[in-house]
Amino acid sequence: MHPTAFATLPKPPYYAVIFSSQRTDGDNGYGETADRMVELAQQQPGFLGVESTRGEDGFGITVAYWESEDAIRAWRLHAEHAAARERGRAEWYRHFELRIARVERAYGWDREQAHGGEAG
Amino acid sequence: MHPTAFATLPKPPYYAVIFSSQRTDGDNGYGETADRMVELAQQQPGFLGVESTRGEDGFGITVAYWESEDAIRAWRLHAEHAAARERGRAEWYRHFELRIARVERAYGWDREQAHGGEAG
Repeated sequence: MHPTAFATLPKPPYYAVIFSSQRTDGDNGYGETADRMVELAQQQPGFLGVESTRGEDGFGITVAYWESEDAIRAWRLHAEHAAARERGRAEWYRHFELRIARVERAYGWDREQAHGGEAG
Repeated sequence: MHPTAFATLPKPPYYAVIFSSQRTDGDNGYGETADRMVELAQQQPGFLGVESTRGEDGFGITVAYWESEDAIRAWRLHAEHAAARERGRAEWYRHFELRIARVERAYGWDREQAHGGEAG
């Protein structure tokens, strides 16, 4: 099992910020800033968790989970986050889509739990 | 620009099915079935689009967009989709989380459009 990539969330409702993006070529400081943004988001009131992945083609999806729309708005106004978004437009992204959604139901499944702990 | 990975969606509201998963090792028919499920979903009433990516660590996120909760329910009852989910539990996933959300706001950005078509 590789549970670390998954966010551990409370029962719905809560909010999801779904960010899909196509990167430009090269790192150009992206990785360091992305790590810093996760570190910073974790310190914000109402932050619940984040899941993120990117394929070799540079297309990635990050979903950040928040308690409320107010928490999302406050994070949006954070100065260091705003500066990172500016740099994203200037350097890191070719295209992105941002969608804000209210999570209403959730369901999880785990191989080890389903099979009583045997190796899967 | 690499627009093909992005879903072209109508104005909100609409629904998102956020599926995050950790794959088992090896393909074992997964890729073929995943492609078939996208092909089949595209034929369902109320299907709006899908975005999907997976990193080299086997952690992936797929977000499928639907017009309504009824459309999601109907797709869930599709026999070939149900069979694929069974095989997912039996063979393809170590762990997954499924979250159903109502998209309330959306925003997109494109480098070429922002820079009047110059190379980015």
